[in-house]
Amino acid sequence: MAQKPTIPKGTRDFSPAEMMRRQYIFDTIKGVFRTYGFAPLETPAMENLSTLLGKYGDEGDKLLFKILNSGDYAVGLTDDEVRRFSKISEKGLRYDLTVPFARYVVQHQNELSFPFKRYQIQPVWRADRPQKGRYREFYQCDVDVIGTRSLLCEVELIEIVERVFRALGIRVVLKMNNRKILCGIAEAIGYADKMMDITVAIDKLDKIGLDNVKAELLERGLTQDAIDRLQPILELTGSNMQKLDKLSTLLAGSEVGMLGIEEMRTLFGYLDRERIDLPVELDLSLARGLNYYTGAIFEVKALDFAIGSICGGGRYDDLTGIFGLKGLSGVGISFGADRIYDVMCALELFPASVNCSTQVLFVNLGSDEETAVLPMLRDLRDAGVAAEIYPESGKMKKQMEYANRRAIPYVVIVGSEELASGAATVKNMQTGEQRQVSFDELSEAVFSC
Amino acid sequence: MAQKPTIPKGTRDFSPAEMMRRQYIFDTIKGVFRTYGFAPLETPAMENLSTLLGKYGDEGDKLLFKILNSGDYAVGLTDDEVRRFSKISEKGLRYDLTVPFARYVVQHQNELSFPFKRYQIQPVWRADRPQKGRYREFYQCDVDVIGTRSLLCEVELIEIVERVFRALGIRVVLKMNNRKILCGIAEAIGYADKMMDITVAIDKLDKIGLDNVKAELLERGLTQDAIDRLQPILELTGSNMQKLDKLSTLLAGSEVGMLGIEEMRTLFGYLDRERIDLPVELDLSLARGLNYYTGAIFEVKALDFAIGSICGGGRYDDLTGIFGLKGLSGVGISFGADRIYDVMCALELFPASVNCSTQVLFVNLGSDEETAVLPMLRDLRDAGVAAEIYPESGKMKKQMEYANRRAIPYVVIVGSEELASGAATVKNMQTGEQRQVSFDELSEAVFSC
Repeated sequence: MAQKPTIPKGTRDFSPAEMMRRQYIFDTIKGVFRTYGFAPLETPAMENLSTLLGKYGDEGDKLLFKILNSGDYAVGLTDDEVRRFSKISEKGLRYDLTVPFARYVVQHQNELSFPFKRYQIQPVWRADRPQKGRYREFYQCDVDVIGTRSLLCEVELIEIVERVFRALGIRVVLKMNNRKILCGIAEAIGYADKMMDITVAIDKLDKIGLDNVKAELLERGLTQDAIDRLQPILELTGSNMQKLDKLSTLLAGSEVGMLGIEEMRTLFGYLDRERIDLPVELDLSLARGLNYYTGAIFEVKALDFAIGSICGGGRYDDLTGIFGLKGLSGVGISFGADRIYDVMCALELFPASVNCSTQVLFVNLGSDEETAVLPMLRDLRDAGVAAEIYPESGKMKKQMEYANRRAIPYVVIVGSEELASGAATVKNMQTGEQRQVSFDELSEAVFSC
Repeated sequence: MAQKPTIPKGTRDFSPAEMMRRQYIFDTIKGVFRTYGFAPLETPAMENLSTLLGKYGDEGDKLLFKILNSGDYAVGLTDDEVRRFSKISEKGLRYDLTVPFARYVVQHQNELSFPFKRYQIQPVWRADRPQKGRYREFYQCDVDVIGTRSLLCEVELIEIVERVFRALGIRVVLKMNNRKILCGIAEAIGYADKMMDITVAIDKLDKIGLDNVKAELLERGLTQDAIDRLQPILELTGSNMQKLDKLSTLLAGSEVGMLGIEEMRTLFGYLDRERIDLPVELDLSLARGLNYYTGAIFEVKALDFAIGSICGGGRYDDLTGIFGLKGLSGVGISFGADRIYDVMCALELFPASVNCSTQVLFVNLGSDEETAVLPMLRDLRDAGVAAEIYPESGKMKKQMEYANRRAIPYVVIVGSEELASGAATVKNMQTGEQRQVSFDELSEAVFSC
């Protein structure tokens, strides 16, 4: 036999078993998005390179998958042939859903109603070096509202986080911070120009501890005096509101810092009144990588499984500015489907029904039996039961093995005895238990997964 | 302002309104697939070029979108730079779902249970010249069972066609033929070697008429005598079974032809017993383009809108042979989502609820009103109603316009009067009718789209 075919490194096939679990996650998330009035959007896999380039930094530009311009010269071409083409690529695969969303909003600004609420669940592609948990093709699952500065939008996104993870059965904590507070901290300690250095360093607080963060800040050029002023901020304790109260003394001199504190007070006030059933924690060391956030930032971590953040996002004030449309503020979050999948597998949170594509298999014992069985099969399907018949008549053992391998929970047997009695044998494949059900009543029987 | 960004020609954005209609089609189709025990599969967008090349003919090879190997040299590269890369592309975007499916089955043959029943709904990419109704990115929606020769599979696919189009409200006719009968016809008239020429010519019967088909057959090298023997076959009338009876006399000398007739008799026998509620028509001029079909072939046409076939497929005996796994027979059909979408738009078959992403908008008239309204909003969402609040307080007119543009059917107004009376004003945006509903009872009110 020829060598087995393979797929490009960093890509994946999703088997039926995996797909059913993934669809369960996506359907749950979509259901919540819909309840909040978010509507679906899809953009093409390919964007013009002019749309993509320069949006993700130099490193990001290198990680774009680029598509050859013409379909007919790419393979086995000679150097001379290649040389004839001055521009070999003008299109690339999307790198995330955010830039295509911004492009869409700008392109269709006159058709859209603002605030514009959309969700988008599509794959993205990155030419990253593949490694465990990092793929070259993976789904993103984004929800954003653009065209309003209202903090109610942040509240809604937090509620969405609550509902999604409650529905999936994952216990989580939501960590929050605010870019304006991070600016304020930098201002308050006299290093407004070193905001990025400071956030990068304090982002590591959890991992490397306070002393190492202080050492790094010294290396990055801060004075000991500034670091001494920073320390009490990093050591704030108490409830979120208590932290904000103390912070408002420490950042009193920073206008932007006080703005950030005010935003967070408003937000936490909403969350208290709405009785959000979700631990929400102000974490001043939370920075998130992306530069475009300008207000609240979010990160969700699973409480019972260590895997990094499974959801995150924030407020951005100028996402569409890169395409020439200024002044549209938005806020969004993104659910990490692959990590959520891993958490749910590890904690065994998928309901049994998710693993069950067929509820009932009719064995096929010959043409008379098949003729008797087909109307029953049709009735079951009419009743919405996922059912099938083994397509060929043959040995019972083989057909039972098929049911086992497919994890089909019920097998209906109609052989010569059953034909004579008018009652089918229904076998529960988990318990091995068998019962007789008259042909007429089969479509009303319960075949739960 | 900068020039508005665009997307590559031949690609599309799907707006929320389009997406909701598309999801309705896909969800309907998926629901039927599931009832028949088909499970979902997804394969990566990129396949190795070695998997794709040579599978679609020379023309197809040219229409593959090829991906540059490395992320970092594609744009603005000099001739010298390009010359350094001897192989610039090893990956391509999938051209259909059939070849990736065959690749998957061969790659995972030892993990799969045969017969293997899968459906797959994913985009494909073709570097075709874009024109009306032809796109460079479009979804295919395939359902196949592989690993059995049982004609019950054909019957199930026909039932799936029946159920899908009944659920969508599209009246259709299913045209069927059999590649073995086409071989038999070629044999019977003495041109077994010209089967392709003959089928290509008679495929045009509907369009160009019998006389022109005969002229074309002469041009393609058939003798007048052979054409005279072909004519009665093309002029067969009567029921499907009657046509098969007459055909079995005409093709009596062809073993393969008689096999095809027997298959179709068995199939039509099943369809009669199963009382399929779908016009099914044996059409001997039906050929379908793809070369790999070896048995029954299908094509579905809408009865009330002229748009070509909206679904098609057939039996193939050696799909996985291209990857070295011989002897696996399968059968499948593919639903044309874009055409189904066009038919449903033209005939206005989408239910009103499909156009409605938000059922209820709460207007926002200030902070006291907002505070009163938020618990009601939460209760409605708990009850599964898609609801939202206008995120900023402001003029009623602007908020009502937003509801109108978003096609939100109900608006709930809570202003100072309503706060005093404890009853919200609920406005039906279609009829303009208003009623009062007490705050407590709002979550039980009906907000149908």
